[in-house]
Amino acid sequence: MQMLKDRITKHGKNLGSGILKVDGFINHQIDPQLMDACGQEFARKFDSVGATKILTAEISGIAPAVFTAKHMGLPVVYARKSKPITMTDQVYLTYAQSHTKGQTVELIVSAEYLGGGEKILIIDDFLASGETIQALVYLVEMAKSDVVGIGALVEKTFEKGREKLDHLNVPIVSLAAVSNMDGENITII
Amino acid sequence: MQMLKDRITKHGKNLGSGILKVDGFINHQIDPQLMDACGQEFARKFDSVGATKILTAEISGIAPAVFTAKHMGLPVVYARKSKPITMTDQVYLTYAQSHTKGQTVELIVSAEYLGGGEKILIIDDFLASGETIQALVYLVEMAKSDVVGIGALVEKTFEKGREKLDHLNVPIVSLAAVSNMDGENITII
Repeated sequence: MQMLKDRITKHGKNLGSGILKVDGFINHQIDPQLMDACGQEFARKFDSVGATKILTAEISGIAPAVFTAKHMGLPVVYARKSKPITMTDQVYLTYAQSHTKGQTVELIVSAEYLGGGEKILIIDDFLASGETIQALVYLVEMAKSDVVGIGALVEKTFEKGREKLDHLNVPIVSLAAVSNMDGENITII
Repeated sequence: MQMLKDRITKHGKNLGSGILKVDGFINHQIDPQLMDACGQEFARKFDSVGATKILTAEISGIAPAVFTAKHMGLPVVYARKSKPITMTDQVYLTYAQSHTKGQTVELIVSAEYLGGGEKILIIDDFLASGETIQALVYLVEMAKSDVVGIGALVEKTFEKGREKLDHLNVPIVSLAAVSNMDGENITII
């Protein structure tokens, strides 16, 4: 998606160690017009997968997920990284390695909002190593629902997360795929 | 706003100790159509305050803030509760007591995205004791910007947060004001 690619080229920053900083429009400051356009694009791409609900992970997945959900007329559930006191009943819990936090994080979803028999579209900000998205897939499987598609704003193809998710046999869509980051050059394919 | 009030009456849950569970449409599962309508309503109410940016706190403030921002054509910054490794430069940091976490949390904003001279509209999910919003106000003051309005989806009037924020002399808008929670009865004024 050209709008997002241009933004990454102009305002993304390679922090080294494979970390792409997009804090100016996705991860700390959010450009809602850009997110709305990305949501519309995901809605178009996943139009035919029959999704009944969108699942994402707090925190940075929320903005792209809610705009996608708005365009698709679906609810969003975001997996929490810590259990708030309002989460009183049965939960599904798994773990994911976070690159940007440098540690393992919990991902928790209440069984109240992720039931069985749902067709789940997973939307997140990054598809990098695929760890977080794979963890979301585990949550869906625990709930006895099915993943019908995976969308990420930005894919870092050199971290090969797509290969890890290929066995799911569902469409995997990224709106901007970064193939290489070398100094100030961010290569988008 | 009637749509939100109806939703709280129907699907909100009093968990005791002043905790109102709205996990089915705001805090864990999000209804994007409802959030979009709330964003539109905030945009209407704050049309004339001259805001240049919206500030919220992760996590639950993000959905109402991004939809408000979309309708107002403004960027959103969300204060982070832990410092990611992409936050490399000067930050503003303050503390807030969290009721639902039962602990003090940090709120951190990068100086890169909250500069001086901005007119900040604060949007959050709850106005309860006013602690979190007051902390956001401190961040704005540290950055030498001005708060021009405060909006919350749900106000718990019995926690008197509004009184704590009155000295700011800015419009404070809540879309649903809960005056009492007694057993299964949630009174909305």
